[in-house]
Amino acid sequence: MTENRQLRLGMVGGGPGSFIGPVHRMGALLDGRFTLAAGAFSRTPEKCREQGVRWGVDPERSYVSWEDMITGERMRPDGIDALAIVTPNYMHYPVAHAALRAGLPVICDKPVTTTLEEAEQLRALVRESGVPFAITYTYAGYAMIREARARIAAGALGAIRKIVVEYWQGWLATSVETENLQAQWRTDPNQAGAGGCIGDIGTHAFHLAEYVTGLRVKALCADLPRVVPGRTLDDDCSVLLRFQDDQPGLLAASQVATGERNGLRLRVYGETGGLEWCHEHPDRLRLLWPDAREEILYQGGIGLSDAARRGTRLPAGHPEGFIEAFATLYQDFADVISAGTCPDTNGFLPCIEDGVRSMHFIEAAIKSHATRSWHILEDCLP
Amino acid sequence: MTENRQLRLGMVGGGPGSFIGPVHRMGALLDGRFTLAAGAFSRTPEKCREQGVRWGVDPERSYVSWEDMITGERMRPDGIDALAIVTPNYMHYPVAHAALRAGLPVICDKPVTTTLEEAEQLRALVRESGVPFAITYTYAGYAMIREARARIAAGALGAIRKIVVEYWQGWLATSVETENLQAQWRTDPNQAGAGGCIGDIGTHAFHLAEYVTGLRVKALCADLPRVVPGRTLDDDCSVLLRFQDDQPGLLAASQVATGERNGLRLRVYGETGGLEWCHEHPDRLRLLWPDAREEILYQGGIGLSDAARRGTRLPAGHPEGFIEAFATLYQDFADVISAGTCPDTNGFLPCIEDGVRSMHFIEAAIKSHATRSWHILEDCLP
Amino acid sequence: MTENRQLRLGMVGGGPGSFIGPVHRMGALLDGRFTLAAGAFSRTPEKCREQGVRWGVDPERSYVSWEDMITGERMRPDGIDALAIVTPNYMHYPVAHAALRAGLPVICDKPVTTTLEEAEQLRALVRESGVPFAITYTYAGYAMIREARARIAAGALGAIRKIVVEYWQGWLATSVETENLQAQWRTDPNQAGAGGCIGDIGTHAFHLAEYVTGLRVKALCADLPRVVPGRTLDDDCSVLLRFQDDQPGLLAASQVATGERNGLRLRVYGETGGLEWCHEHPDRLRLLWPDAREEILYQGGIGLSDAARRGTRLPAGHPEGFIEAFATLYQDFADVISAGTCPDTNGFLPCIEDGVRSMHFIEAAIKSHATRSWHILEDCLP
Amino acid sequence: MTENRQLRLGMVGGGPGSFIGPVHRMGALLDGRFTLAAGAFSRTPEKCREQGVRWGVDPERSYVSWEDMITGERMRPDGIDALAIVTPNYMHYPVAHAALRAGLPVICDKPVTTTLEEAEQLRALVRESGVPFAITYTYAGYAMIREARARIAAGALGAIRKIVVEYWQGWLATSVETENLQAQWRTDPNQAGAGGCIGDIGTHAFHLAEYVTGLRVKALCADLPRVVPGRTLDDDCSVLLRFQDDQPGLLAASQVATGERNGLRLRVYGETGGLEWCHEHPDRLRLLWPDAREEILYQGGIGLSDAARRGTRLPAGHPEGFIEAFATLYQDFADVISAGTCPDTNGFLPCIEDGVRSMHFIEAAIKSHATRSWHILEDCLP
Repeated sequence: MTENRQLRLGMVGGGPGSFIGPVHRMGALLDGRFTLAAGAFSRTPEKCREQGVRWGVDPERSYVSWEDMITGERMRPDGIDALAIVTPNYMHYPVAHAALRAGLPVICDKPVTTTLEEAEQLRALVRESGVPFAITYTYAGYAMIREARARIAAGALGAIRKIVVEYWQGWLATSVETENLQAQWRTDPNQAGAGGCIGDIGTHAFHLAEYVTGLRVKALCADLPRVVPGRTLDDDCSVLLRFQDDQPGLLAASQVATGERNGLRLRVYGETGGLEWCHEHPDRLRLLWPDAREEILYQGGIGLSDAARRGTRLPAGHPEGFIEAFATLYQDFADVISAGTCPDTNGFLPCIEDGVRSMHFIEAAIKSHATRSWHILEDCLP
Repeated sequence: MTENRQLRLGMVGGGPGSFIGPVHRMGALLDGRFTLAAGAFSRTPEKCREQGVRWGVDPERSYVSWEDMITGERMRPDGIDALAIVTPNYMHYPVAHAALRAGLPVICDKPVTTTLEEAEQLRALVRESGVPFAITYTYAGYAMIREARARIAAGALGAIRKIVVEYWQGWLATSVETENLQAQWRTDPNQAGAGGCIGDIGTHAFHLAEYVTGLRVKALCADLPRVVPGRTLDDDCSVLLRFQDDQPGLLAASQVATGERNGLRLRVYGETGGLEWCHEHPDRLRLLWPDAREEILYQGGIGLSDAARRGTRLPAGHPEGFIEAFATLYQDFADVISAGTCPDTNGFLPCIEDGVRSMHFIEAAIKSHATRSWHILEDCLP
Repeated sequence: MTENRQLRLGMVGGGPGSFIGPVHRMGALLDGRFTLAAGAFSRTPEKCREQGVRWGVDPERSYVSWEDMITGERMRPDGIDALAIVTPNYMHYPVAHAALRAGLPVICDKPVTTTLEEAEQLRALVRESGVPFAITYTYAGYAMIREARARIAAGALGAIRKIVVEYWQGWLATSVETENLQAQWRTDPNQAGAGGCIGDIGTHAFHLAEYVTGLRVKALCADLPRVVPGRTLDDDCSVLLRFQDDQPGLLAASQVATGERNGLRLRVYGETGGLEWCHEHPDRLRLLWPDAREEILYQGGIGLSDAARRGTRLPAGHPEGFIEAFATLYQDFADVISAGTCPDTNGFLPCIEDGVRSMHFIEAAIKSHATRSWHILEDCLP
Repeated sequence: MTENRQLRLGMVGGGPGSFIGPVHRMGALLDGRFTLAAGAFSRTPEKCREQGVRWGVDPERSYVSWEDMITGERMRPDGIDALAIVTPNYMHYPVAHAALRAGLPVICDKPVTTTLEEAEQLRALVRESGVPFAITYTYAGYAMIREARARIAAGALGAIRKIVVEYWQGWLATSVETENLQAQWRTDPNQAGAGGCIGDIGTHAFHLAEYVTGLRVKALCADLPRVVPGRTLDDDCSVLLRFQDDQPGLLAASQVATGERNGLRLRVYGETGGLEWCHEHPDRLRLLWPDAREEILYQGGIGLSDAARRGTRLPAGHPEGFIEAFATLYQDFADVISAGTCPDTNGFLPCIEDGVRSMHFIEAAIKSHATRSWHILEDCLP
């Protein structure tokens, strides 16, 4: 039976020194839906082979070229069922494009491309081909984020009035790009695209706000400073938002907030209640009520939604984290492949539409910053 | 000796139902520097008398009219040494003006007046008369806020790069102004002035940011929505900031964040470290270091500054709060009266300059909102 | 009307260097029910006078001898209405005894005496005289402790099954008694009594456990080590408890837990729910439910009991602390004096019965430690 | 090269409905050191096959009998390299015994056996055979636990004076054993052994205290109530401890603390500092200093020990949890197999000695409870 057979995953990127490649591998394997069957981990032959051996990939399926992998795997009876793209941003588009044309389902890291135009072209190709395409907006994989989404959709907070999303990092507070590979490509417009902080983590925050509330941003006013001298791209951003029905919002992100680790935090206030989720304690959902009473729901607790249960492996009080959130996205991806339709019916798995939205957001923020004024976000509503 | 004699305080406002009047009384008495000797607590004779009796004020010194109190007390050998103004905003100016002209030191609640013009007139009068004038920006009275200020001034965080200040309340999430006295005058432009949320709590946040960092805001872009239908004044605000050397900042405040209590929070990031203070845990100062290590300093701990020690009555681990913060401001005020000079030499006690700054801030925010654009904040630097 | 007149308080102890004396003064004055009218603050005339002047006490009512104060005040038409005893433990008994015999209501710091025998004698005197006698078990003054008590009494947790109470301090982790006055008398059996840590803070923990649950300890097994070399009295204690219906419990306290500040924490588990209160966040009451859901109630919130409201001065989110808890006990004490009956009808104010219970507890713990075995706690139930 | 080849793991237990089996699988696979090659997941053929298919195990290597698996795998050229035992406790001994005799390295869940005698027999066999034997005391796999251990060993807290370890659960607060499989065997002495709560989670707490401090418990006094009516085994426990140099300690665990999830918490106080770790926030290590200053170290931060880094996959601020802790133990186990020696040289991986210690602890606690007195813990020091 198809659902029971483990799917065979190929990976592009993820060589030694990669941050997100190993996370994709662990996420894919965790729940037993995928095996890692092939990889173009690196253009450097020894590095590619080394990673393949470490991860138990058949040496003849460690490819130095991703083009060869796509071609080679198509000819095998046990060829890969799907492709994970875990490279720097500028490689997303060509690899995804080739895979989709080869009919291979794709799961791609974010942001989907480096330009809005590329994103729109991928969307056209996805629509035309019908091949599943997923984007790993990690935080969409957290059980309590899904719980938040389900509760808001069910009206638990009443009409939404205010949304605040923040993402704080400090790792770029000094000019680490001179020696740190991860920092190097993220601060280089040729590899990262036109957004620095706004593209790298601002998009996570933006996606989360829309994903959880179901609302769309319609206008924004952004301030995108370059705080560390010598940077070409923004390394800090503050954005005033207005959502579709004029609800005010706020998005703040920084990579120069010295001492901060990875502080993503979402707050949503409605007419009858408020809600908070922090990445620091991902197993909790805090609900705020008008009588100054808080409720804290815990992952694994009784009475949570199917959406949350599906992303939960352990009883309450047994911490699950970042890798598990990826695993949940890979579960969704496996389902989508099995079903042959994307997006999934409940819309849990971020897809090409989310990718295009994020590119609109980056583009609008950059324009707003440049003009020191409010800017309308295109593609707001269908 | 003057320093040892308890000072005699008169109060204008603070009748039954007042929120801030009783807080001023408790703050004034706590450290033994003041007694409450007289009051014009209410225009309603029974209410005025009732409050005087409750607080042990000699019945003949409970005045129905504040004008009578100023005149009457001047003629007593044991007349009041200072005046506390705890009325709704629109009364601040006339009472303060009269008191200053009578040579009476004044301690006034915030915001100092309802218009920038009035504030500037008071400033002229203070400068001309040399009479002490203090404003109870409450949070300036917290020991760990003073510790933060002292550490930043000493360079503990390196050059400051980013400032984030937030103030979250939810008590105006519904139209409580129809029945709640506190809400009624705060949402009425005739009593509160032109700023709603921005004037009531945004000014606290603004003052705190400048007070702790010693930096001045030079430009801002504000969004001041009226979230609850029917409101004339803003009840939520988000403000992009740029400080004097172009440092980015963010100020967010809301009175419609359902379920929030009184969540004031300040974060400051510098080149070499970060810092956080939350009103929820006022005895803590969190320091963030680039090695992902946090340090938490506690009020009453060893090694804190004189500034913090002065605002500390109890050993570490024995909570002090809002009333104690007021008491520290009243200590400062007593010192200023004894010394006959204001502001105090170390600038701990908020004074008329702080009041004028805040009125500039409110005015600039309102203009920015109206024009949907960035606005320069006047009076930025001396 | 009696209820409206401010009561006149005299104080024994509280000279310069006292920790708890100033706290009593602030607590007594905070809510306007008492004025500080007289004091025997110190046996040293200058110190006594100095403190009186600082606190606005009429110089002729600053007495060097407490005996003189009791006598002298009885002869004044405006003599004191009540006496606060804030001396080291060994002075509690003689002063309280004399005051009660003079018909003066007494509010005394804890532990009530240095021996069980003295406590029982005071109880006899209180019963015989009918004069109000209160003990400042501080934590009984916290609003959310009263909320906890009210909820447990109303059955919110079902039948109680397990009680855990802890009190962690680190200030005696080194031999500070050589220079610190507070440490000196607390580690000296002649001044403190036979209990060190168990008497100083273990009694707070014990009182809190019984106060909140309404249950009585019937047996215990204690380990009372002297951790710092050279100590005569215990400076750390761990006690296994069994409550009246055999419910297991645990009491832990230490004054040598390096780095701890003043960490009192109570947890109560019942058949249908659990509850936690920590002194670190005194405005919160955490409720734990079987579905792994927590509820946090905040002081000042809507829907809390009268008991909590009575100890609340400010809206939710405005921290109140240690001094305010004392103030609530002084409110109760003022009511008891006005009513002429003690204990108060709802039993909020700790009284002589609580004092006697605590002395039984100390005595039983010391015996259990000495015999390395379980010990029955006398006076368990009426 | 052996180190690079993925090791082949067989599993006994872990059929549908198992809690810990899937955790072992995920832990083993996460870091790529093991593949799951064979399993005797269940005695029921369909269940065994079903689990094998789900986990990608070759159908002919899904064995209904563990005895067959050991025999069958020995005959394959690609036979398993090691065996994971994830059954209820009473099966640990026979399976481990057979595997060790077959020369197969074993990784076994805790407690190691149901009786001390069995544990000692296994120890003899391990010593005699030299075959690696590991026990999954989960918490020994957490990075910050290893950091705590390294810091204490390096003297960061000075001489240790007090140890407090707690483990709170509420899932057995009602008689769930009538329907919950996990509860059923844990409350049944025939399957769980003589310890209920003390054996199931008390041993985790005990192990953690000794593992982190390097000290050995020498005496204890235990109270082991059966709180829920009808239970044969204890479901709550409180234990006074004395460590090898007379240091006092406290161990508390409960499975009937209604509303608690999985609250393991360790505190260690030394002469010069204190330390706290909570399972709720496993990425943090809290250090307490005598000046009332706290330091919080975060997993992934700069400056942590090799020990912590080894158990860290992600940058600071990216949560890792329970599964990752298992993965770290499996990393250690892979190293031990490669090196052919157990225990590992730095003693990170819990081994048979830890198992025997825990059985001594359970036995001593049960005797102490039965006699209501202190009891000496055998096997205290080598």
